[in-house]
Amino acid sequence: MVGPFAMNNNDSFGEHSMTNTKNDAITLADLGQGVALLTLNQPESRNSLSLAMLDLLDQRLDEVKDDKAFKVIVIAAAGKVFCAGHNLKEVQGQLGDHQAQLKLFKRCSEVMQKIVELPLTVIASVRGVATAAGCQLVASCDLAIASETSRFATPGVNIGLFCSTPMVALTRNVHPKHAMEMLLTGEMISAARAEQIGLVNRVVADEELEQKTFEFAELIASKSPKTLAIGKEAFYTQNSMSLNEAYNYTAKVMAANLDILDAKEGICAFVEKRHPQWQGK
Amino acid sequence: MVGPFAMNNNDSFGEHSMTNTKNDAITLADLGQGVALLTLNQPESRNSLSLAMLDLLDQRLDEVKDDKAFKVIVIAAAGKVFCAGHNLKEVQGQLGDHQAQLKLFKRCSEVMQKIVELPLTVIASVRGVATAAGCQLVASCDLAIASETSRFATPGVNIGLFCSTPMVALTRNVHPKHAMEMLLTGEMISAARAEQIGLVNRVVADEELEQKTFEFAELIASKSPKTLAIGKEAFYTQNSMSLNEAYNYTAKVMAANLDILDAKEGICAFVEKRHPQWQGK
Amino acid sequence: MVGPFAMNNNDSFGEHSMTNTKNDAITLADLGQGVALLTLNQPESRNSLSLAMLDLLDQRLDEVKDDKAFKVIVIAAAGKVFCAGHNLKEVQGQLGDHQAQLKLFKRCSEVMQKIVELPLTVIASVRGVATAAGCQLVASCDLAIASETSRFATPGVNIGLFCSTPMVALTRNVHPKHAMEMLLTGEMISAARAEQIGLVNRVVADEELEQKTFEFAELIASKSPKTLAIGKEAFYTQNSMSLNEAYNYTAKVMAANLDILDAKEGICAFVEKRHPQWQGK
Repeated sequence: MVGPFAMNNNDSFGEHSMTNTKNDAITLADLGQGVALLTLNQPESRNSLSLAMLDLLDQRLDEVKDDKAFKVIVIAAAGKVFCAGHNLKEVQGQLGDHQAQLKLFKRCSEVMQKIVELPLTVIASVRGVATAAGCQLVASCDLAIASETSRFATPGVNIGLFCSTPMVALTRNVHPKHAMEMLLTGEMISAARAEQIGLVNRVVADEELEQKTFEFAELIASKSPKTLAIGKEAFYTQNSMSLNEAYNYTAKVMAANLDILDAKEGICAFVEKRHPQWQGK
Repeated sequence: MVGPFAMNNNDSFGEHSMTNTKNDAITLADLGQGVALLTLNQPESRNSLSLAMLDLLDQRLDEVKDDKAFKVIVIAAAGKVFCAGHNLKEVQGQLGDHQAQLKLFKRCSEVMQKIVELPLTVIASVRGVATAAGCQLVASCDLAIASETSRFATPGVNIGLFCSTPMVALTRNVHPKHAMEMLLTGEMISAARAEQIGLVNRVVADEELEQKTFEFAELIASKSPKTLAIGKEAFYTQNSMSLNEAYNYTAKVMAANLDILDAKEGICAFVEKRHPQWQGK
Repeated sequence: MVGPFAMNNNDSFGEHSMTNTKNDAITLADLGQGVALLTLNQPESRNSLSLAMLDLLDQRLDEVKDDKAFKVIVIAAAGKVFCAGHNLKEVQGQLGDHQAQLKLFKRCSEVMQKIVELPLTVIASVRGVATAAGCQLVASCDLAIASETSRFATPGVNIGLFCSTPMVALTRNVHPKHAMEMLLTGEMISAARAEQIGLVNRVVADEELEQKTFEFAELIASKSPKTLAIGKEAFYTQNSMSLNEAYNYTAKVMAANLDILDAKEGICAFVEKRHPQWQGK
């Protein structure tokens, strides 16, 4: 059950088979057991989310989605910075061009929402610093695991540009006063604090990040991919509904869920005390 | 102030006067001081919420509501499992009958919403395992107290049936990443973790669950039942409103609250430094 | 960077220049570095929010907003009680006068919403007991810091008057079961518990409250006031939107934010590795 990547490298998921190297700014690797690894791979620019990087991330998410081998996506990063947010040089170069800036923020928002809308579970695996849109990326993932020395911030106030789009994802993860403190001070919070306030699920020792991430991902990938897709869509759909609407909607979701083969198989396997065999996605 | 139940039995609230034994799958007992105890009493089927159990729970809630003696309801369970959720054999027997399944999930949703709409405070007192719709039951109660060895899960993914209706109550209690972790992994969380994420209010030693539950319930039952009913209704009504709507609504609620006798009595008693005498419910 | 107030007085922010003494029930002081201090100064009536106090608080907030010197507001209190909520003698004197009561609760709601709508950051600095509308005041501030012995409650149930308007602010800060426990029991919670559930950001030693509050405020006041105002408005506006609406809205907010001089200055200063010089508010 151990994935096909070595653990002798603190900076990455180690050796893995590259399935696409056309553009290595974000690499896609197959970790096995249905787990895809997307690695932000521009440490020289602190993995910043330029328009080109956003387009590439969008493309990579589609590639994973369309590949029947993958059920869960891990987003990790190479280098000491997980993701520094937007590329400030790109933003600076467009100062005065309101339409270009709007396009950039809209594109970023689209990709963040794509993660939410994707039928696969997406797990952020954070080593190092995740700031601004990088923090938004972590918040936008369904789950997040962080190494103990990683840190998080929405530091836009330090440059006169409030982290208003990262705030959308952040405020949907943590209590308002915790979000406000990050947004108004711009200060870094520790991984432990991020875990405490609900921004990440788990904090692990630095040297265990890859192993623990894989175990987390593999556990989810062992479930029925169709069931996971039904549940994830229902999660975000019911979230903004009134209690009554949400129940009417999810009661229908559950009844429909029972109509798929994997539910019949799962229930029968449970009653017969055997392992279920899931359909593909 | 000690309730009329013995503490010599770790598995139950001990001796108490049964007020209804017609159907002992859910028993109703009067703990005194205005506290009603509903005990899920089918340990042989892990207190699972079959359609019959849901109907009975609905009926018991009405009985307590209509009895002037009761101000607070405790929901507890007999046996090692608090509540295992839906009855899988019942669900299995209906595989292929979409309408029957939909009816079951709708019925369950109705009863969960009834707890929310009830004018009495409802406290879950959890010993053992609360899973799926059992976890939803805990989340749907106004308050929850758990013994230290109790555990919680939404394990539907393990049988191909995502816990979509339990998710409605769960996501209204805890942060999204905490809910997602439970829903996507299906794994048990400890009572301590449930307390940490907001699913239960208090965790107590196993041998103290009944006593601490009663103290919690008795404290609330000592307040004006009319005031508690006004407040609970306002709580869930304002929750989904915008800030401005919520304030317009609750300002009217408070002014109306002041028109009832219990508010006049409460304020006068406070000013006169004496104990207030509340009206009945 | 140390503010112009002495730390030799546990009960107040010490010596400071009074900018308005016309009505000393709420004093306004300039702590320097852009930080205004509003002190609830009626310890003899436990800083209760009578209609007159609400009007005065409203007026003081306007004074600070209109004064170009101030970027951040600290709300503190003199005496052992931070704020005891509404003035019960005033409420008692109006028993039976429904319109007068409604006016009081509406006025209170207006002032609480004014804090939310104010373009300046508002920080509650709590020493002592904050109850009912006093707890609501803390919850309504953008941020809150509390001394370790301070305590919080919504004790309306004890006098037959459910804390329905305080509940609006409380439930927008903490998880529902935590809010319900405070509202239904009326019991005090400690500063540590308030921090744990998200009602306050930070708890500090009693003797450090003023210093830590000032450091917190000063840090935020060192940012661009225009940027802080843009961000705060966006925070509360996007909060109640769907994910898609929130992203469409905040993408526009960020693009507009980039059109202000402070963003250009901030980005250039960052790239040039120098301190930015912000415009006034």
